[in-house]
Amino acid sequence: MKEISKLMEYRAGVRVVDATLRDGGLVNDFYFSDDFVKALYQTNLRAGVDYMEFGYKASKDMFDESKFGKWKFCNDDDIRAVVGDNDTNLKIAVMADVGRCDYKKDILDRSDSPIDLIRVATYLNTIPGAVDMIEDASNKGYEVSCNIMAISNAQEGDLRAALDILGQAPVDVFYIVDSYGAMYPEQIARLADLYMNMAAKYNKKVGIHAHNNQQLAFANTIEAVGDGVDWLDATYASMGRGAGNCAMELLLGFLKNPKYNVYPAIQFIDEYIGKLKAEGVVWGYDLQYLMTGLLNQHPRAAIQFTKEKRTDYTEFYREVVAQD
Amino acid sequence: MKEISKLMEYRAGVRVVDATLRDGGLVNDFYFSDDFVKALYQTNLRAGVDYMEFGYKASKDMFDESKFGKWKFCNDDDIRAVVGDNDTNLKIAVMADVGRCDYKKDILDRSDSPIDLIRVATYLNTIPGAVDMIEDASNKGYEVSCNIMAISNAQEGDLRAALDILGQAPVDVFYIVDSYGAMYPEQIARLADLYMNMAAKYNKKVGIHAHNNQQLAFANTIEAVGDGVDWLDATYASMGRGAGNCAMELLLGFLKNPKYNVYPAIQFIDEYIGKLKAEGVVWGYDLQYLMTGLLNQHPRAAIQFTKEKRTDYTEFYREVVAQD
Repeated sequence: MKEISKLMEYRAGVRVVDATLRDGGLVNDFYFSDDFVKALYQTNLRAGVDYMEFGYKASKDMFDESKFGKWKFCNDDDIRAVVGDNDTNLKIAVMADVGRCDYKKDILDRSDSPIDLIRVATYLNTIPGAVDMIEDASNKGYEVSCNIMAISNAQEGDLRAALDILGQAPVDVFYIVDSYGAMYPEQIARLADLYMNMAAKYNKKVGIHAHNNQQLAFANTIEAVGDGVDWLDATYASMGRGAGNCAMELLLGFLKNPKYNVYPAIQFIDEYIGKLKAEGVVWGYDLQYLMTGLLNQHPRAAIQFTKEKRTDYTEFYREVVAQD
Repeated sequence: MKEISKLMEYRAGVRVVDATLRDGGLVNDFYFSDDFVKALYQTNLRAGVDYMEFGYKASKDMFDESKFGKWKFCNDDDIRAVVGDNDTNLKIAVMADVGRCDYKKDILDRSDSPIDLIRVATYLNTIPGAVDMIEDASNKGYEVSCNIMAISNAQEGDLRAALDILGQAPVDVFYIVDSYGAMYPEQIARLADLYMNMAAKYNKKVGIHAHNNQQLAFANTIEAVGDGVDWLDATYASMGRGAGNCAMELLLGFLKNPKYNVYPAIQFIDEYIGKLKAEGVVWGYDLQYLMTGLLNQHPRAAIQFTKEKRTDYTEFYREVVAQD
C-alpha cells in the first residue's frame, strides 16, 4: 500500500508530457488547424504541463507530404510559427520512429531548433537502430527519451536485455509503453519495478505511455507514478489512436504539485474537442478496443472496425478470438 | 505489489453482482422492457454472474407507481414473471434504502419469495435504521448486505464506529461504496484494509460498488479484489447513475475463474445497449462527472447538467468550484 504522506505530497521530479498532437494526430492524419495548435500550446503553458509533443519527424521519402497534416513531419519552422522563441518553461518534443525517420538530415542541431526533446520510438527487435538515433540526438544536444513499444507480450529477459543496451546509450528516460492497452495496474507495478531497477543502475528516469482499451490508461498512469515513475504522457480528452490515452484532465486533477491546473484543460476541451468530434474525428474507449486489449492484440483490427462504422460487436469478437 | 501467483489464480469466494437494473434504473426511471430484463437474466446465467439485482423495494407510499417502471418496486410477482422458480445458480437481489422502504410490509418471508439477498443501503447517519432493516431481512431468512454510501468524505473514526455496529448485526457483507466517484485506487486500498479488518473481526465479507466519474470504477474494483474484497458490483456497459459503474464486460474479462464468460456480455450489449442509447437514455463518463468526482461532491449538479443537455463545461466548472 502507498504511504499516506505520498498521497498528499508530490515529487518535484514528475514531468507531464502532452502527446495530443502526436498520438491524436494518428486519428486525423495530423490535420489540426493552426488555431487548435496555438490554443493547445497556450493551454499547456497555463496548465503547467512540462513538455508538448508536436508530432513526428517522419521521413518525407517514406510518407507523402500531401497526404498528411504538417505535424506528421514537424518542420522546425512550423513549430517556430507556433512557439516563436518559446521563452517559457514548456519544453518542445517530437517523436522519431526507428526506420521511419531521416534523423541525420531532418533533426537539426538543438542550437538551431525550437525542439528540446527527441522521443525515439522502437520495438524490441530494433534496439540497435534506436541506439543510433539516441546517439545522434544526444550528440546534437537534445534531451532524449526512448519508448519501447508493444511490451505487453515481451519476455522479461528480452526487456531486461534491451534496457541494458539502452542504459549504456545517452538516453535520459526509459518509457513503459502499453501499446495494446492490455495491462492491468498490478502488471504495471511489476513492470515499473523492473524499469526502475534498470533505471537506477544506469542513472535514468522512467516514463509511462498508456492506452485506454480497458479504461485503465489513467489508472495505470497513477499506479506508475505511485511506483516512482516520473514522466507521464497524457492527451486532452484522451485523444489518441484507437481507445486513446490517459486523459490530461484526469491527470492534472490528480497531481498534487500546485504548478498543475486542471481549469485550462477544461476550457480547451470545451472550446476545441467537441468541435473536432462534431467534424467526425473518432477515438476513445469502445467495446472493440476492450476486446483487442483483453486479447493482448494490436488494435489495428479494432481501428478498422471503427473506420468502417461497424457496430456488430458480437461478430467482431468472433473474428478477433479466431485470430489467435 | 500483488503476488504473481495471485494474478494468475482466482479466489473461489469472489461474487459478481449485476446491478444494471437497479443502478441503471436511476437513469431511465426503471422503464426497462420485459424483453430487456429477460435477456439480461439469461445473459447473467450464461456469463456466470452470481447475483442479479432487479431494482429497489421502494415505498409505494413515498413514490408514485405511475411515475416509475416496475423495477423501482420489485414486486415479487414481477420478478417471478422473469425467473420462474429460478432453479439456477444465479441468485436474486433487491436494494432497500433506509427511510424509503416499507420493509416490514413489502419484504415477504424468503420462503415465499424469489429473492435471495436484501441489499440495505444507508448513509452514515442512519446506521440504526439500517440495523433494523438488516434484522428484519435476516429474520425473514434472507442473505443481507449493507452499503454505506458516500463515504469519500467520511471520517475514518465514524466509519469504524459504523462497522462496529453493523458487525454485531446479522449482515453478511459490508460494502465499500464510492458514491461520488471521488476515490483513487490507493485510497481504495486503504479503505479495503479498514473494511477487511473489521470484517475479519465480525466474520463478514466485503464488497465494492464503484462509480466511473474519473474513469476509475473498473480500476478501483480490481484494486479491491486484489486487496481481498470478494463482492464486486458491475453493470453492463457501465449503465448507472451519472458516470455509471464498473463495466461488467471489463470485469468479466479480468476475472480468472473459468465460470465467468465475457462473450454473453458482449452479445447483450450489442443487442440491447445501443438501442437504449438510441432511445435517448444517457449515462457514462463525461467532463461534468470528472469535476464533481474531483471535488468530492454529490453528482446531482452534473446529472442536472446532463439532463439539460448543456455542454458549457467551463461555466459548469466555475459553478461547482463556487459551491464549496
